[in-house]
Amino acid sequence: MKRLTILGSTGSIGQSTLSIVEQFPERFEVAALAAGRNVESAFAQAVRWRPQLVSLATEELADRLSTRLKGAGVTEVQVTCGTKGTVDCATLPSADFVVSAIVGVSGLEATHAAILAGKPVGLANKECMVAAGEILTRAARERNVPLLPIDSEHNAVHQCLRVGARNEVKTIWLTASGGPFRQLPVEQFASITPEQALKHPTWVMGRRITIDSATLLNKGLEVIEACRLFDVRPSQVRVTVHPQSTIHSLVEFIDGSILAQISVTDMRLPILYALAYPERPASTLTFDLAALRQLDFEQPDFERFTCLRLAFEAAEVGGVHPIALNAADEVAVDAFLDRQISFTGIPDTIEQVLASTPEAHPTTIPEVLAADRVARQTARELVARAAQGR
Amino acid sequence: MKRLTILGSTGSIGQSTLSIVEQFPERFEVAALAAGRNVESAFAQAVRWRPQLVSLATEELADRLSTRLKGAGVTEVQVTCGTKGTVDCATLPSADFVVSAIVGVSGLEATHAAILAGKPVGLANKECMVAAGEILTRAARERNVPLLPIDSEHNAVHQCLRVGARNEVKTIWLTASGGPFRQLPVEQFASITPEQALKHPTWVMGRRITIDSATLLNKGLEVIEACRLFDVRPSQVRVTVHPQSTIHSLVEFIDGSILAQISVTDMRLPILYALAYPERPASTLTFDLAALRQLDFEQPDFERFTCLRLAFEAAEVGGVHPIALNAADEVAVDAFLDRQISFTGIPDTIEQVLASTPEAHPTTIPEVLAADRVARQTARELVARAAQGR
Repeated sequence: MKRLTILGSTGSIGQSTLSIVEQFPERFEVAALAAGRNVESAFAQAVRWRPQLVSLATEELADRLSTRLKGAGVTEVQVTCGTKGTVDCATLPSADFVVSAIVGVSGLEATHAAILAGKPVGLANKECMVAAGEILTRAARERNVPLLPIDSEHNAVHQCLRVGARNEVKTIWLTASGGPFRQLPVEQFASITPEQALKHPTWVMGRRITIDSATLLNKGLEVIEACRLFDVRPSQVRVTVHPQSTIHSLVEFIDGSILAQISVTDMRLPILYALAYPERPASTLTFDLAALRQLDFEQPDFERFTCLRLAFEAAEVGGVHPIALNAADEVAVDAFLDRQISFTGIPDTIEQVLASTPEAHPTTIPEVLAADRVARQTARELVARAAQGR
Repeated sequence: MKRLTILGSTGSIGQSTLSIVEQFPERFEVAALAAGRNVESAFAQAVRWRPQLVSLATEELADRLSTRLKGAGVTEVQVTCGTKGTVDCATLPSADFVVSAIVGVSGLEATHAAILAGKPVGLANKECMVAAGEILTRAARERNVPLLPIDSEHNAVHQCLRVGARNEVKTIWLTASGGPFRQLPVEQFASITPEQALKHPTWVMGRRITIDSATLLNKGLEVIEACRLFDVRPSQVRVTVHPQSTIHSLVEFIDGSILAQISVTDMRLPILYALAYPERPASTLTFDLAALRQLDFEQPDFERFTCLRLAFEAAEVGGVHPIALNAADEVAVDAFLDRQISFTGIPDTIEQVLASTPEAHPTTIPEVLAADRVARQTARELVARAAQGR
């Protein structure tokens, strides 16, 4: 029986993780849940799963949850709050596995703490790897802690890598759907509206990641994540546009063999893989290979998708540049959704933030978070200026 | 350093194996070569590779080779002949690895002998597995001898299987190019000429295997081979038609993940994989993934490709039925190439031979060879009768 801590339990990945726990009661149990601000959802999860510990964002929210649990006669669930509460969930002695699914860098400290506590981690939070990949992977290596990627591309790569040795890897090929603007003339990019950009062709996801999929910045973050997770150079990672998102990624070995992973586009599959690794439980998430007719591929257009180029450049520089890339993008995407800047304002903002970011290599989480704050501040100022000029 | 015995050294796979030895002199050496009737080619190979032992089909051919080698001043190469000679090559104490690449069931005894002698075997001879798969795999299991498939489909499957446990395999999907008649109306099948059937869209191969690719009987033999090699039931093997032959095969696991292997269509790649396993040496056999544009798939039409249906049926019955399928096909293909029977006469002959074949399960190689002879005799009689009726 594996006892799980889920960081980000009320989010999309958190909920999918709990649905896997529900399907495999003989394999998994819930040890702790760290949620954010959604008291209702956290209450329902606590009642259903009876974890040892639940954490919410603030003391006030934690108090409300405590009261509701007492009212419902649930007394065995402890409630805590804040970053310390999340870290307590991540390091709970009775937990065997931690799912890191808090969006953004706010899950960073708890993920780091889980690794330091020797817990195997399922990583659904790519910002953690982008911002602090070197720190997290070093800590994991030193303690021999497995890091299991939960997003579909890196999960696919993790599977394909089992077919050879690490020094036999030539290139990791990440597939990209190409987003909704794969074929739109570049001249029309400036006038793309938030409504158009929020329509993703194959995946249903959160708002930021949907915009990041349209700019391909999301694929850029995945390139950086792949470098960190699998210890390869940026020149060893390439992107191929594959509109059907059927092949989730590929690994090319030095002998010439390429392995590819195919499955339904359902996040429960990589979650199940990470939770049960190295076993593969039987699931009903079947891909109908007999119905497969056509798979298409094309080269990504770096002119059209400036964000992808910027991400490769940030990966090459390393250190604070990936942090700045991610932070600037988050600010720029919010500004785009608020109609403060145009769609092309997103790469413009990132490029300017990167240009003003020095080369530096943080070695601690507080240094990472400081670099993140500086980049956000710079991005906000740029966005405010751009919004005035509109 | 791995010392190789190559059974079938002057054939296409044998020559490709030697070209791999040439490319990786720091990894491989030649211990013994078993050739057939081509004295010139065997002479050149013996001079170049200086094996300890060379075997030819008959005593007369062996004498001619001995004389030529003495004339050339090559004295360290021993020459032998016949089935005993081939077995001596296969069991040579100084050989570390045996490549089984003699076409047809004539390589069977030597392949069995190699396994009994504890030599890891690279299997390029699918008839061995089809005719005596149960005997060979049992012997290999008992002696813990690795069997490494060299044909591209099973080699792909072998790679994909490394990503999970054997009891986690749901379905093995073999890809088939579909041959040149994938889209020809069924009514025109009877009038297909040998010239038309010898044009294979993606692979350049021998004459029988090219015809077998056009009837999909070759894929049927591969289905049976997959059952034997990977210990799965016929219902766990499926065929998908994939005209580009880019994906060489796929393995579907019970959790829903499917792994696929992609590479150039060059037999040197599976040969290198088998010889170097579990390592992957760097090669120049690169597949240009950046140039990949489209992969197509369709369901095989069992009405159009009767031979594929017959192979699945023979696999289900097991025992002598796969032996009879293979033997009848070899006779029928020869008769088709000699214009004695029509293209549809091939499945007709096989179906009649299978109908007259009892259910029996041979447990020794002589029993297998006897069943093979009986089926061939039946097929020859049917063919002669059909030729008279034409």
